[in-house]
Amino acid sequence: MKADLLIKGISQLVTAEGAGPKHGRTMRELKIMEQAAIAISGGVIGWTGRESEWEGEAEAIVEAGGRAVVSGLVDPHTHAVWAGDRLADFEARTSGSIYEEILAAGGGIRSTIRATAAASRDDLVALARSRIDCLIASGATTIEVKSGYGFTPEAELAMLEAIQALSAVSPARIVPTLLIHIPPAIATERSSYMSQVGEELIPEVARRQLATAVDIFVEKEAWQVAEAETLFHLAKQHGLAIKLHSDQFHRIGGVELGIRLGALSVDHLEASGPEQIAKIAASSTIATILPGVSLHLGIPSAPGRKLIDAGAAVAVGTDLNPGSSPVFSTSTALALSVRLNGLTVEEAFVAGTVNAACALGLKDAGRLEAGCTADFLVLQSSDWRDLVYTLGANPVRDVWIGGKKAR
Amino acid sequence: MKADLLIKGISQLVTAEGAGPKHGRTMRELKIMEQAAIAISGGVIGWTGRESEWEGEAEAIVEAGGRAVVSGLVDPHTHAVWAGDRLADFEARTSGSIYEEILAAGGGIRSTIRATAAASRDDLVALARSRIDCLIASGATTIEVKSGYGFTPEAELAMLEAIQALSAVSPARIVPTLLIHIPPAIATERSSYMSQVGEELIPEVARRQLATAVDIFVEKEAWQVAEAETLFHLAKQHGLAIKLHSDQFHRIGGVELGIRLGALSVDHLEASGPEQIAKIAASSTIATILPGVSLHLGIPSAPGRKLIDAGAAVAVGTDLNPGSSPVFSTSTALALSVRLNGLTVEEAFVAGTVNAACALGLKDAGRLEAGCTADFLVLQSSDWRDLVYTLGANPVRDVWIGGKKAR
Repeated sequence: MKADLLIKGISQLVTAEGAGPKHGRTMRELKIMEQAAIAISGGVIGWTGRESEWEGEAEAIVEAGGRAVVSGLVDPHTHAVWAGDRLADFEARTSGSIYEEILAAGGGIRSTIRATAAASRDDLVALARSRIDCLIASGATTIEVKSGYGFTPEAELAMLEAIQALSAVSPARIVPTLLIHIPPAIATERSSYMSQVGEELIPEVARRQLATAVDIFVEKEAWQVAEAETLFHLAKQHGLAIKLHSDQFHRIGGVELGIRLGALSVDHLEASGPEQIAKIAASSTIATILPGVSLHLGIPSAPGRKLIDAGAAVAVGTDLNPGSSPVFSTSTALALSVRLNGLTVEEAFVAGTVNAACALGLKDAGRLEAGCTADFLVLQSSDWRDLVYTLGANPVRDVWIGGKKAR
Repeated sequence: MKADLLIKGISQLVTAEGAGPKHGRTMRELKIMEQAAIAISGGVIGWTGRESEWEGEAEAIVEAGGRAVVSGLVDPHTHAVWAGDRLADFEARTSGSIYEEILAAGGGIRSTIRATAAASRDDLVALARSRIDCLIASGATTIEVKSGYGFTPEAELAMLEAIQALSAVSPARIVPTLLIHIPPAIATERSSYMSQVGEELIPEVARRQLATAVDIFVEKEAWQVAEAETLFHLAKQHGLAIKLHSDQFHRIGGVELGIRLGALSVDHLEASGPEQIAKIAASSTIATILPGVSLHLGIPSAPGRKLIDAGAAVAVGTDLNPGSSPVFSTSTALALSVRLNGLTVEEAFVAGTVNAACALGLKDAGRLEAGCTADFLVLQSSDWRDLVYTLGANPVRDVWIGGKKAR
């Protein structure tokens, strides 16, 4: 074989094996190869194996210096596009204010919606880009980014256009999602907004390929199950995948709806109970858990351990957003999932790679195998477990995306 | 005034005011000056004020670019010198093994003691230096480092010598502490080890100025109150300050002993109850809390909020160590104290600066005032609150120690 590039001197080469979601105990089965090398051609992995078994030619050779190399991380849930900040909210909440007081003072999610609407597209792209660069530095090579701080179809389209522009300038693979986040504050505007979303926004997004999935925040104070169902049917008619924010504070049937409609993922799950866990475990829907929210807000952690023990396929994301999860590191999200959700080291790795890719409907991301895009990380350490052990420092040294050094 | 250096373009200049520990509600009182500048001469702050009010001359000018500048952080509790790793322990524990099984498999703290004893002094210094560099990058300009992975007076001296060598090569101010950590495994060796520590080690450490304080791990499974009292009296006779690891798992009287003997600080306090809190609040001893341990081990968090409400002076540290707190960032420890210990943003800042300095007996560290060493941080953000808000990325852009850019 003739390769563009050979990465050698790898102490451990670590990947989940095979495509498709890993359920339950299979989340502990990794392929770990010592003294390994990777050959890359045209941005795609051509060969992986023992360094001593490499018999091809390579135009260039990069020395990993006895460090561990792992597949690039996939962040399956972010809200990386926003303007303004929530520092005053944070200060108020951690000083004892309740959310209603923060809202009354002009804070809360609606302040982010206002600031985002007021920002130019160039500003939104620049702001998001620095955040995406943080996620890349932390090991993410594929990153989902949601809209959802719009409030009108126009504002959601503007966010998706910003995500498209971000995608064009970022080395990471950006996966855009249309998020229908918060209903209008005025109850009488609710059904007309739903009609606009269903009849104008979703068709337009599908036509212009501005998103691959529609996500809806199903919650007592947000969208109800019947409303979400109506919109999801329209999304599917337009060829879009579906996913849900569900069971974050209350289990009102979001998980059940997601499973019934074949959602790619149900996300959050902090309030899920045994029935929801059993339903997810019996499905092919990914359970995406978001430990940063639990740390930042002090809400219960999603039942990661129970989900895996029941047989579910769990993914982990940052949920990067200014109000409930200012976690600017995908590897930190994995590190937190071990401490807060009871995942093992191996499970966290699978959750942040191949399972996260499945949560985005991707088959070729999150793995280090011949035929996959050459997305991988050179760690600081010779031991891959440092990726989820280290807290507060970046365990990732170099980030390669599509066979090119991105950082 | 004639200055070596003027730092201008500072959006907010933030410091705790005045020397001495901040107790209770005064932990919320910061001095925040907008559009500020700092003048430095001979590594010491000569002047701070409104940029428009600067009337002196400066040999060099550095532009902060509209970013916030805050006093350098003080990390009052680390075990940054060790060899080996605890990744196998971490994997086993998070896969469900109990500590006794890990010990039986050759892991646990005694594996760190073995590896540290087997390492050369140069190796210990090199290993610790990369960790100290992480803490500096995270904003620490003064860092306490403990011995304690020795097992004999010789091994403790070797660790303190490594800390001394580290101090000579690191830009940070290193404060060395002699830690009497784990008693001999064999009960009959306990009293002879105590004699060696009291009659040989402590006098030698004091004579050679290898530490400024003696710390003892007072815990059911470690040193008892009477044993610690004996050693502390000897430490004080030799002019050394004292501090304690106390109430981490059980409240066996460590806090009470520390208060009675005028300890600089009582550290950990996860198991402290109302009586201990009241005693600390009525004393001048600093309560040093270590949120990384609670996150990493899943043990209860120290009652930071209750301590402050009762009137105690709280400090926060990383407790950087391989077994119970692999937190390589002092600013992350502050960020965690807001989420896990109920501190406000302002309290976390005071806990990580002037109160942490007091926990080390230092009067000139942790503040940005004329006469203090010029230790300060230029943040990434124009808003200082980002220092404790941001999770997973480094909120610190530049670190200045003694008037020189250390990073």
